Amino acid sequence: MNAQQSHTPVTVLGLGAMGRAIAGAIHRGGHPTTVWNRSAGRADDLVAQGVTLAPTAAEAVRASPVVVVCLLDDTSVRDTLAALVDPLAGRLVINVTTVTPKRARETAAWAAEHGIEYLDGAIMAIPEMIGLPVASLLYSGSQAAFDTHRGLLELLGGARWFGADAGLASLYDLALLGSMYSMFAGFAYGAALVGSEGVPATEFAELAAPWLTAMTGGLTGHAEYFDSADYTAETQSLDFNKAAVDTIAEAGHDQGIRTEVIAAVQHLIDHQIAAGHGKESFARIIEAIRPPATGGGGREGR
Amino acid sequence: MNAQQSHTPVTVLGLGAMGRAIAGAIHRGGHPTTVWNRSAGRADDLVAQGVTLAPTAAEAVRASPVVVVCLLDDTSVRDTLAALVDPLAGRLVINVTTVTPKRARETAAWAAEHGIEYLDGAIMAIPEMIGLPVASLLYSGSQAAFDTHRGLLELLGGARWFGADAGLASLYDLALLGSMYSMFAGFAYGAALVGSEGVPATEFAELAAPWLTAMTGGLTGHAEYFDSADYTAETQSLDFNKAAVDTIAEAGHDQGIRTEVIAAVQHLIDHQIAAGHGKESFARIIEAIRPPATGGGGREGR
Ligand SMILES: NC(=O)c1ccc[n+]([C@@H]2O[C@H](COP(=O)([O-])OP(=O)(O)OC[C@H]3O[C@@H](n4cnc5c(N)ncnc54)[C@H](OP(=O)(O)O)[C@@H]3O)[C@@H](O)[C@H]2O)c1
Ligand SMILES: NC(=O)c1ccc[n+]([C@@H]2O[C@H](COP(=O)([O-])OP(=O)(O)OC[C@H]3O[C@@H](n4cnc5c(N)ncnc54)[C@H](OP(=O)(O)O)[C@@H]3O)[C@@H](O)[C@H]2O)c1
Repeated sequence: MNAQQSHTPVTVLGLGAMGRAIAGAIHRGGHPTTVWNRSAGRADDLVAQGVTLAPTAAEAVRASPVVVVCLLDDTSVRDTLAALVDPLAGRLVINVTTVTPKRARETAAWAAEHGIEYLDGAIMAIPEMIGLPVASLLYSGSQAAFDTHRGLLELLGGARWFGADAGLASLYDLALLGSMYSMFAGFAYGAALVGSEGVPATEFAELAAPWLTAMTGGLTGHAEYFDSADYTAETQSLDFNKAAVDTIAEAGHDQGIRTEVIAAVQHLIDHQIAAGHGKESFARIIEAIRPPATGGGGREGR
Repeated sequence: MNAQQSHTPVTVLGLGAMGRAIAGAIHRGGHPTTVWNRSAGRADDLVAQGVTLAPTAAEAVRASPVVVVCLLDDTSVRDTLAALVDPLAGRLVINVTTVTPKRARETAAWAAEHGIEYLDGAIMAIPEMIGLPVASLLYSGSQAAFDTHRGLLELLGGARWFGADAGLASLYDLALLGSMYSMFAGFAYGAALVGSEGVPATEFAELAAPWLTAMTGGLTGHAEYFDSADYTAETQSLDFNKAAVDTIAEAGHDQGIRTEVIAAVQHLIDHQIAAGHGKESFARIIEAIRPPATGGGGREGR
C-alpha cells in the first residue's frame, strides 16, 4: 500500500460520501493522495490510512498534477475553482461532480482560458460501488488526459470516454439517470396500486423486477423508431396504448392513489393523438418530448 | 391437430389481434374451438385451420362450456355479455380483456348473479408471444375454474392464480404495466436528451437497457421501505436525489426538450420534502402517491 514512484500524485477536493470513496480507492491504488474538504472532520478515516490532508484547497492542488473535484453541485465547483486559478494552471482537473452538459462545457471553457486541462466525469455508481467493476464512470473532454490517466480512472470503476465535448459525459449520465428515476417512480406507482389492496410491495417487486428487465428488451425497437422518425405502426398503436394507459390511471383513481406518474405518460400519448397520429406507433411519444424536427436520419432499410 | 374427445370445447368471443392469437393457440392445443366476432372477416385464417365460426355470439356460447372473452375494453365486454345471460348460465367465462379491478369485480358479481362461473385474466404478452413460455397470464376469481382448466390456460402461456377476488389479476397487471410505461417514458426522455446532441437512440439503448436492468436490483430495497413505511435513510436522501433530478430537468430545459416526464418525479420528491422529509430515503416518494396512512406493517427486524 506504499505510494510508488510511478504513480502520479492525485488530489481530491471534496470529501462527501463520494469524494471519500474516490480518495480511498486512489490511495489504495498506490497514488500519493492529498485531500481537502471545506469542513473539518471528513478526512479522519483517510488520514488514518495514510492520505495527506491539506489545510487549504490551494495547498492541496499544489501537491499533485491531477486534481479530482467531487463537490455537491456546479455552484460549489465554481465557487471552489474560481479561487484556485493560479495553483491549477498547468494541472489536470477531473470534475466528477454531477452537473448539466451546459455547465460542464462552461467549466471546460473556463479551464481552457486559464491553461488548465479538463476532463469531465459522471459517476454511474453509489460510493459503495467505487473501485468495483460494477461501477461505471463516463468521461468526456480531454482525450489525452483520459488516455494518459486511464489506469488511475480504472481504479474507480469501468471508464469510458464519450468525446472531446466536455458536456457528453453529463449528457449520457443525466439521460440514464432520468430513465432510472422514471422507472423508479413507475415502480412506486405500481406498488401503491397493489398496496391499496394490501399486497406487500416486496411481493410486487418479485414480479416487477423480472418484468421490467424483460421489457428493456423492447427499448432498441423504440430507439429504431426514434432514430428513423418513421412511426408506421408495426405492432401496437398509440390508440391501443391509450386504452391501456387510461385504464391504468382509472384503476389508480378507483383505488384512491395519486396518478401523476401515469398522467405524464397519458399526456405524451394524448399530445400525439391530438396531432393526428393515433394509428402510429407508441414510440411517437418521443415527439411529445423532443423539439420539432429533431430526430430522423438513419434507419435505412426499414 | 384433430380435436380430441378429452379436450373441452372452447369458445372465443372477440377476434382482434389478441383474440385471434388465443383462438389459434387453443385450437392447436386440440380443443374444439368456436369463435365469434362482431365484424365479419376476422375469422378467415382460423376457419381455414379448422376453427368453427358461429354466426351469432349466442350460438358461439352454446357450442362450449368454456367461453374466453377477449374484446377491446370493459364497455364492449358489458355490451356483449348483457345480451348473453341465458346462453351463458352454467358456463365458465374467462375474461382476458384489460379492465380495471373494480370493473372485473363488477363483472364477477354480475356473473355470480346469473349462475355464470367467472375467471378474470390479464395478459402480460403481445399476441406474437401467446403460446410461448415467455407469455405470462395472471388470473383471479374462481379457483376451481383455474385448477380444472389449467391445461387449457397453459396453452396460452405461463398461468398464475392470484386469489378469489376477481380484481386481483387486473390489479397486478395494471401495476406492472404502469411501471413499464413509466420506464418507457423515461427511456424516451433520456433518448431525447442525448438525441438533442445528435446521439442516436439505438446507441443510447445499448447503454440504457443494461443500466435499467441493473437498477431493477434496487426495487426490492425500495419495496422494503414502502412496506415498513420507515424511511430512515440508509443511503441516499430525498434532498440528495432532488439535486440529481433537478439537474436532469435543468439539462432538459437547456437542451430544449419537454421535461414533463421528469417533472412528475420532481413533484413526488418536492411533495415529500415540503412535508419535512428531505433527510429521509428517496423511497418516500411512494407517500406522495398512496393515500395517507396506507402501507406500514411488516418489515420486522430492520
Ligand atoms: N453519492 C452518490 O451515490 C453519488 C452517485 C453519483 C454521483 N454523485 C455525485 O458526486 C457528487 C458528490 O456527492 P456526495 O455523495 O459526495 O455528496 P455529499 O456527501 O453531500 O458531499 C458534498 C460535498 O460537497 C462539499 N460542498 C458542498 N458545498 C460546497 C461549497 N459551496 N464549497 C465547497 N465544498 C462544498 C461538501 O463539503 P462539506 O463537508 O463542507 O459540506 C462535501 O464535501 C455530487 O455531485 C453527486 O451528484 C454521487
Ligand atoms: N394486443 C396486445 O398486445 C394485448 C396485450 C395484452 C392485453 N391485451 C388486451 O386484449 C384485449 C383485446 O386486444 P386486441 O389487441 O385483440 O384489440 P383489437 O385488435 O383492437 O380488437 C378489439 C376486439 O374487440 C372487438 N370489439 C370492440 N368493441 C366491441 C363492441 N362494442 N362489441 C363487440 N366487440 C367489440 C373488436 O371487434 P371488431 O372486429 O368488430 O371491431 C375486436 O374483436 C384488450 O383488452 C387488450 O387490452 C392486448
